[in-house]
Amino acid sequence: MRKTPRLLEQARRVACGEVDQALVGTRVEAQGWVQTTRKYGQLLFISLRDAKGSLQVVWNAAKADAAQEIPQDLHEETVVRISGTVLARDEVNVNERMKTGHVEVALESLEVLNRPVVPTAIPVERRLRPRPGTDRDNNNNNNNNKGAKKTSKTHSGLASQAARLRSRHLDLRGAEMQRNLRVRSALLQGARSALTEDPLDFVEVETPLLFKSTPEGAREFLVPTRNGEPGTCYALPQSPQQYKQLLMAGGIERYFQVARCFRDEDGRADRQPEFTQLDLEMSFATAGDIQGVIETVLGRAVTGARTQAERFARGIETWPTSTNDKTHRTAWEASYIPAPLRAFAEVQAPFARMSFEEAMLLYGSDKPDTRYGMKMKAVKGFSRLDTAMANSKHYSARAFRIPADVASAWTPSRKVWEELAASALSDVPRHARVGLVMVRTSSSGNLEALRLGPSPPTSIVPMFKALNDDEKAELVGALGAREPGDAFVMAVCEYEGAPHRVGRDALCEALGRARVAVGEATGEKALAARARPLDIFWVEDFPMFELGENDELRSTHHPFTMPRPEDIEVLRAFRCSDTDRSANSCGPSQAEVLEIRAQHYDLVCNGAELGGGSVRVHNADLQRHIFRHVLGISEERIEAYFGHLLAALASGCPPHAGIALGVDRLCAILLETPTISDVIAFPKSVAGHEPLTGAPTRVPDEALAEYHLFARK
Amino acid sequence: MRKTPRLLEQARRVACGEVDQALVGTRVEAQGWVQTTRKYGQLLFISLRDAKGSLQVVWNAAKADAAQEIPQDLHEETVVRISGTVLARDEVNVNERMKTGHVEVALESLEVLNRPVVPTAIPVERRLRPRPGTDRDNNNNNNNNKGAKKTSKTHSGLASQAARLRSRHLDLRGAEMQRNLRVRSALLQGARSALTEDPLDFVEVETPLLFKSTPEGAREFLVPTRNGEPGTCYALPQSPQQYKQLLMAGGIERYFQVARCFRDEDGRADRQPEFTQLDLEMSFATAGDIQGVIETVLGRAVTGARTQAERFARGIETWPTSTNDKTHRTAWEASYIPAPLRAFAEVQAPFARMSFEEAMLLYGSDKPDTRYGMKMKAVKGFSRLDTAMANSKHYSARAFRIPADVASAWTPSRKVWEELAASALSDVPRHARVGLVMVRTSSSGNLEALRLGPSPPTSIVPMFKALNDDEKAELVGALGAREPGDAFVMAVCEYEGAPHRVGRDALCEALGRARVAVGEATGEKALAARARPLDIFWVEDFPMFELGENDELRSTHHPFTMPRPEDIEVLRAFRCSDTDRSANSCGPSQAEVLEIRAQHYDLVCNGAELGGGSVRVHNADLQRHIFRHVLGISEERIEAYFGHLLAALASGCPPHAGIALGVDRLCAILLETPTISDVIAFPKSVAGHEPLTGAPTRVPDEALAEYHLFARK
Repeated sequence: MRKTPRLLEQARRVACGEVDQALVGTRVEAQGWVQTTRKYGQLLFISLRDAKGSLQVVWNAAKADAAQEIPQDLHEETVVRISGTVLARDEVNVNERMKTGHVEVALESLEVLNRPVVPTAIPVERRLRPRPGTDRDNNNNNNNNKGAKKTSKTHSGLASQAARLRSRHLDLRGAEMQRNLRVRSALLQGARSALTEDPLDFVEVETPLLFKSTPEGAREFLVPTRNGEPGTCYALPQSPQQYKQLLMAGGIERYFQVARCFRDEDGRADRQPEFTQLDLEMSFATAGDIQGVIETVLGRAVTGARTQAERFARGIETWPTSTNDKTHRTAWEASYIPAPLRAFAEVQAPFARMSFEEAMLLYGSDKPDTRYGMKMKAVKGFSRLDTAMANSKHYSARAFRIPADVASAWTPSRKVWEELAASALSDVPRHARVGLVMVRTSSSGNLEALRLGPSPPTSIVPMFKALNDDEKAELVGALGAREPGDAFVMAVCEYEGAPHRVGRDALCEALGRARVAVGEATGEKALAARARPLDIFWVEDFPMFELGENDELRSTHHPFTMPRPEDIEVLRAFRCSDTDRSANSCGPSQAEVLEIRAQHYDLVCNGAELGGGSVRVHNADLQRHIFRHVLGISEERIEAYFGHLLAALASGCPPHAGIALGVDRLCAILLETPTISDVIAFPKSVAGHEPLTGAPTRVPDEALAEYHLFARK
Repeated sequence: MRKTPRLLEQARRVACGEVDQALVGTRVEAQGWVQTTRKYGQLLFISLRDAKGSLQVVWNAAKADAAQEIPQDLHEETVVRISGTVLARDEVNVNERMKTGHVEVALESLEVLNRPVVPTAIPVERRLRPRPGTDRDNNNNNNNNKGAKKTSKTHSGLASQAARLRSRHLDLRGAEMQRNLRVRSALLQGARSALTEDPLDFVEVETPLLFKSTPEGAREFLVPTRNGEPGTCYALPQSPQQYKQLLMAGGIERYFQVARCFRDEDGRADRQPEFTQLDLEMSFATAGDIQGVIETVLGRAVTGARTQAERFARGIETWPTSTNDKTHRTAWEASYIPAPLRAFAEVQAPFARMSFEEAMLLYGSDKPDTRYGMKMKAVKGFSRLDTAMANSKHYSARAFRIPADVASAWTPSRKVWEELAASALSDVPRHARVGLVMVRTSSSGNLEALRLGPSPPTSIVPMFKALNDDEKAELVGALGAREPGDAFVMAVCEYEGAPHRVGRDALCEALGRARVAVGEATGEKALAARARPLDIFWVEDFPMFELGENDELRSTHHPFTMPRPEDIEVLRAFRCSDTDRSANSCGPSQAEVLEIRAQHYDLVCNGAELGGGSVRVHNADLQRHIFRHVLGISEERIEAYFGHLLAALASGCPPHAGIALGVDRLCAILLETPTISDVIAFPKSVAGHEPLTGAPTRVPDEALAEYHLFARK
């Protein structure tokens, strides 16, 4: 290190946050940011901060050498190098809650290394954000509002998300992002260690990001190249799926990668155009093998993350050693360690399993949050509905109950209800018509009010018009009222000319969206989340195909997924080109193929999909059959887009299975951040804009011309 | 795991390569590839291979249950699952050199999981490639040719590089790539562990790959986006340089990342359009701090890599436990562990240091291979040259000696010499004219032959024309002949109207290229490399700027590099717009600025640059001065391209320094592979083409139209 003349040569270089009583009497040199300065007569106190914590530095003008002069304008965030001698604080000045609270440094010299523009664009926030349900949260006086949604906006005093992204370098300097990035790093390193060490013994392989354009899935970013004819492009991969399957054919029996992936989608909330997956694949593996690996790896990763979170928090506030008992530690943890991170320790492997069917029927979602009730069930015994159902087999109804105590505190206006219903019905596929009905019972248990959703299908409306008292009682009974004051949300679905599954899923999903909306509006979701901060389990037995916009079959996940063994025969016999199947009934019907289950599994956590995986097709003939005769891709396109994969499968590729977990989402859940942006160093806005650097930008026409491209004027 | 009826339920699942005597008597189930089959009467021997090694499986038709039938067509690379009982081999059948050589499995059932196309496109090579200088290399009968260049082509029996890339999945299944990818994974994990653990305590941060287009450096890939006006693009980063500096401003005091980087260059040999860097940055750090971190991290990384290489090699051949002495182990290591990986253990930290000036003057390169001699020195005492130099201060000459024993074995034809000279002179900047001369002395020490390079500058040619005997003797003396038969290569440089450094560097570089070419042609380079497989050191004190094509100053590395403290004053006083400096001589000259040294350091290994780094400019004013008044960038462009960086520096950014190491190159050197493609799972060809998937491809016009782009027809 270059010597600065003003510094004493013997000074020992230390981190601010690590100066403790063992160093009393030692001359030290420290570097960091001026956090605060306070003047008391002849004394100047400087709180100096670095990544490890804060240190109190004292300048005594009365004792100082006349030759020395301390700059007067030590604004906050000035970067300085100081030297001085570590002294024990007087007992009355000891700060038990600070790691360095027993000492201070008597300043001997100070050098300004860099001065900030004053004032800084946003304050550098040294506090962690209050967590829901903690003392610090209570002090923020929003705890009485049981159902308040926690977003960054409710924490007053913090800069807005937009301002934070514009001045990300200052935002990163604050405690919240410092903690989040360190925890994320420790999480990934924990996962990597578990994967690379015995017994798992995975090999990390970096796969190309300059990939080939493919026709499947969401939109991909193109990367033009000057090699080849004009219009020749690479594509940025949406996942390393094909490469990892090639690695399986290549005998890398256990592969993993922390992989950057890309998706060019129009601004979906809380999505990023580039994101990170923990991606792995194993030869000779079953679904259970993969799930076991993930359970082990997550355990190790989260342990690493929690250790880092604790370490970081102790740099801000430590618990007094004199009262280092369990109660105090528990209170400290509640304040500083996000609840899901604490709760993970109690999750036992193997995680729970739920079938796709159960998830849909009970929660109307393939990624349900099971922590709050309002489970859905079939409605039977309301004669108008029973009659309608008897007349059509494509008709069904399900409902969930809002318990009386919750219902009494939540009385949405017609407008609020209609918005909720409209949003629940917004994604219903065209084959199905779904009506949404809310029913309230009175304190005597009678039907008190009945509200229909917006523009329900005509055949559903009349059913609820002008009910007589008997019918009202019948409806309340059919819904399964348990106590006076219960309310219900019911969905009725009509679907004709479509396979059974399409109608059922449409009904369940619409009611499931209503369930989430009611859970959020009533605060039940937040309440349950506080009581049980982590809800993690596998969803299995997904349908292999779904209906596309033109009634064609398309893969629910991707075309490389293996069906259950018992379904392979049906699949192999199917040919989508046999259009007139009724006349020529040799093969299975589309409806039968829609019932095929895939060996696919999703990991679901707190109502979000953390990731998904599957056993893959390892047989070239079966894979070709799926492309050609189920998905209806032409031979020519199969060869152009998937020829390399088919060749690899045909080269003696072992059976294999894998999974990919979303690292951003996992971190956001564990750290309870309102958005994934808070666990990414330089996130992009919803429109794909990076407020700090201004990317993307309009490039000069000459730059495009290099690639033989022209922009439309 | 799904039960296959034919397999016995109690079978224990094992890896082929891990079955040993401890399992004798146990029923096992194993999965893998059929490597070979041999028939002896009623016996069928199957060698079954997985990632851990090979296992001998025996089928005894005489003893077999009639209900069981073994498929007859077990071609190589068929994927099977077998079960059977582990038996000890008869003593005569024990294979001491195989980890599983003491046992075999008596086959009870076999299930074919996948069949390969027969024959496979390229053979799956189970041997590691012979390493230079080993017994196995000697057996390949090319050791007598002392100077033979080792490339993949010389190892007969292996598929060509092109065929290997086309069938990469099969190539990956071979021992060489299996080993290389595992070693690479272990190397990176070793580095990550060292970095994230105490005491280094670095934080891994993922920075965006969808970055902003910048004007500096090599060409960048563009990524069009649909957001914004037509022609709006992201750019793929050439390095995370700006983001890591933003992280320093953001208080992430110790950052690292294994970062993917991109460079759209026209096919440079052994470069990839995407490559991996171990990238790090530290606040409050000096060059020495960074070098110390790298020395520690490399030590740990290489230890991990070596352990993995040994582990892998023992799956192919192990040394007999009965003769587990040092001699045997040494021979085994020489065969299976690449020499640089072995040699690294003997490198002491701190690594050696060499100044840029020394590197240029002695070796004519900023990344010299110092293992072989032929050091360059100034030529003085040849009167014709001395006269020319006296007449012009822009004139100089250097030479290196080819010792007599080497020179006697290397007598290049005129054509070979001229090609060598032409290639050495190919990159001379336009300001300088360099002539190359080869001088041979006879067995009596007289000048025997003199050859000029192609088209030397006119003023240099006459100097060597028609020398009389005195002049010949004078020349031999001036060159510093030590023994009869010595030869010399000399470079003479004339440069006028250019700063001193430009001429000197042009001379040294041309002669340095000749030195490398002669080292390769004579085999001295290869010989020295065998004697000392690893040559690693730091090169420091680089010039901060160089002359661009229009005599403008440009950064030698990048514009964020900090000059040495003693040079800052000159730099701050310089203004490139003061064109008429002679009249208005207030500021330093361009020549003075060209003498400024940067706080930059390169890590050089075996004549290649492993990586480079520097102390960065942390002061916004100095950075702005460099952009505006040294590099001559307009205020408007500074704001557009670097505004965010300047704002971050001005926000209280600490002093910081960093480095980036090329992971691909490091792996290739340690594993002695002829190209970096051999340490990358899916490399691209020189033209940026991926032979396996066919990327890049011509995308449909509609895909481009999504981005408001048109391809030129």
